[in-house]
Amino acid sequence: MFDPNRFNRDDTLILGFAEYCVPAQQLAKYTELPYRDIELHRFPDGESKVRLPDQLPDKVIICRSLDRPNHKLVELALAAATARELGASELILVAPYLCYMRQDIAFYAGEAISQQIIGKLLAQWFDAVITVDPHLHRIDKLSEAIPDTEAITLTAAQPIADFLGKTYNNPLLVGPDEESEQWVTAVAQMQGLEYVIGRKKRFDDYNVKIALPESVCTARDLILLDDVASTGRTLEATALALQAYKPASISAVVTHALFVGDALKRLENAGIQQVWSTDSILHSTNAIPLAELLSTAL
Amino acid sequence: MFDPNRFNRDDTLILGFAEYCVPAQQLAKYTELPYRDIELHRFPDGESKVRLPDQLPDKVIICRSLDRPNHKLVELALAAATARELGASELILVAPYLCYMRQDIAFYAGEAISQQIIGKLLAQWFDAVITVDPHLHRIDKLSEAIPDTEAITLTAAQPIADFLGKTYNNPLLVGPDEESEQWVTAVAQMQGLEYVIGRKKRFDDYNVKIALPESVCTARDLILLDDVASTGRTLEATALALQAYKPASISAVVTHALFVGDALKRLENAGIQQVWSTDSILHSTNAIPLAELLSTAL
Repeated sequence: MFDPNRFNRDDTLILGFAEYCVPAQQLAKYTELPYRDIELHRFPDGESKVRLPDQLPDKVIICRSLDRPNHKLVELALAAATARELGASELILVAPYLCYMRQDIAFYAGEAISQQIIGKLLAQWFDAVITVDPHLHRIDKLSEAIPDTEAITLTAAQPIADFLGKTYNNPLLVGPDEESEQWVTAVAQMQGLEYVIGRKKRFDDYNVKIALPESVCTARDLILLDDVASTGRTLEATALALQAYKPASISAVVTHALFVGDALKRLENAGIQQVWSTDSILHSTNAIPLAELLSTAL
Repeated sequence: MFDPNRFNRDDTLILGFAEYCVPAQQLAKYTELPYRDIELHRFPDGESKVRLPDQLPDKVIICRSLDRPNHKLVELALAAATARELGASELILVAPYLCYMRQDIAFYAGEAISQQIIGKLLAQWFDAVITVDPHLHRIDKLSEAIPDTEAITLTAAQPIADFLGKTYNNPLLVGPDEESEQWVTAVAQMQGLEYVIGRKKRFDDYNVKIALPESVCTARDLILLDDVASTGRTLEATALALQAYKPASISAVVTHALFVGDALKRLENAGIQQVWSTDSILHSTNAIPLAELLSTAL
């Protein structure tokens, strides 16, 4: 079992990648563990080179989110194997955003069940994997995706609830779809807020429609909540559906700010005045640091 | 041991990726084995999805070059695991260009020895790996990089020699550096051609200098030969050094046409009139198909 008291400064090191090291450095601050960079070089031909500190202690924690994951997965494979080579006997991945969690079933025969395959690779490289709000749809526990390893799921509900409590006065929370319900309920209860949940239909990567219950109130400050925003179409469709109720304002808060392409611009055009996110993925909307939450798992 | 007679139409299938399937399809033609596409979808958030034929025979050959490798390695992991899931008991990778072969040593303490790490991943996913002219520098055999699997190295020397024999009349072959010597010698001997070998000094990814022996003759058709051209700086520096000898013409032939960024333009500016390559990597310079060579290994 995972022992929360097992880390100390003398035998544990936190490693981050210099291209986005703030969460890793803050995690080091909260846990009072030493921090070092993993140097990353990307060659002109598309290959990557990583360099770790040449002396590693027994326990090594690598902190890196896995958005835009393919390069990062290969670089993690290089880093993990090199850490073992350099003597790390216990290797922990802290990935505030975990990739490939949505492809959890073969919708058509022959499709890769990527969640399981990538999960097994991570399990092979790391003794423990810690993440925040993974998008688990058809499985209940992260350990079903990352077997034979310590798979720890945190939720950003508390940091998000705290942020909303400081920033808004009696807003109405809106979950776009059934998948968000449990999580929106948790945030709402932490601050004693009201909430509604929509119903989503997805046609493809870019096209979704949202139906909302009629109970949504006019002239309220509405906060759309979701765990991850990629193309932003879910938030966009929800905002467009909400316009009919003449809200006082619409904002959005997401744990994971993927926001690919023109997603943020589309949200603005759909009438979302403010978009906030945790710092699981580096983005201009980051407002809610996760380091303190992550430190509770170590 | 690898048994060249073990494949037949009834229990073997060749799979390629639709984004560059010509070599895989030609390989199927030469081996008279059936061919099917692996469907590939890249999601807007940077994740990949692969779909294999839903019925697979016992033996499956996946043909895919691994230039710009990080996406492709993750997609190979997905494809290989899915092929096993679908019943393939023997899985062979034909990668005309194999990635990460150049990072075969830790130049500084703490650096990942990527060749060994990626090699072990491939060994874990495949029962055999077949490639052409891998850039092995400090190891002698591909099996040292890809352990516990059948690692087969082919050389494009014969197809290149045949191409030169058809296309040029008594050219002088030029190998830019010591590493190319053995391979340039082989090509030269196959067609009874003369050759010279330069001496290379590399300063970083983009800066190299070449020294050539004084024996290079004026007014000759010079053919620069190399296994791989990435930034093209080696060929460029060689061509610039050769201009002093007032050659009749300078051409270049490479096995693997990575040619990143403005590499091809730089070669043109350095006075290289013609650039040719094998089809290991899809490129406008492709003139020498490898399928027949690859088929000899199956």
